Amino acid sequence: MVKLIVAYGQPQDPAAFDQHYASTHAPLAQKIPGLQRFEAGRVLATPDGSTPPYYLIAELFFEDTEALQTAMNTSEGQAAGGDVANFATGGATMMIVEV
Amino acid sequence: MVKLIVAYGQPQDPAAFDQHYASTHAPLAQKIPGLQRFEAGRVLATPDGSTPPYYLIAELFFEDTEALQTAMNTSEGQAAGGDVANFATGGATMMIVEV
Repeated sequence: MVKLIVAYGQPQDPAAFDQHYASTHAPLAQKIPGLQRFEAGRVLATPDGSTPPYYLIAELFFEDTEALQTAMNTSEGQAAGGDVANFATGGATMMIVEV
Repeated sequence: MVKLIVAYGQPQDPAAFDQHYASTHAPLAQKIPGLQRFEAGRVLATPDGSTPPYYLIAELFFEDTEALQTAMNTSEGQAAGGDVANFATGGATMMIVEV
């Protein structure tokens, strides 16, 4: 299994980010075909007390890298990917990670 | 539950990193009291084909933030934390994330 990690940088307006994420983006992500599990968690702190480099980390699990790439090329995958620019004012770092 | 994410930057010598991680660091991490789950996965790629910002991502799960902080202050937690400097030639970004 692999997961797509999406690490969102600190947004300009956290409340607006939260609102868009909960009402629009998470539902779009959960419609991606082949998605086996979806998790998103807020970054609470760093061990040394410095400002965390990311605000929220989402994980989208797929059977393998090929399934992930196929999924992201569907219309639902493109819709979710395209929506990132609508709210991720702190940027979004994406990585495919083995599970 | 919370998890400590440790995102390792690209090491100068990946083979040496892998060797130290498997033989020394992962066993040290797994001895940390209160650790409920430990996972580590290689970053395989990025969706756009750019070089991934991280090489390996480890996740250490604890009951809550207090349990995590208590754990990291034990001798085993200090040993694991102190060992990072011995092999993480690409740096290590640590974050406490809600699960």
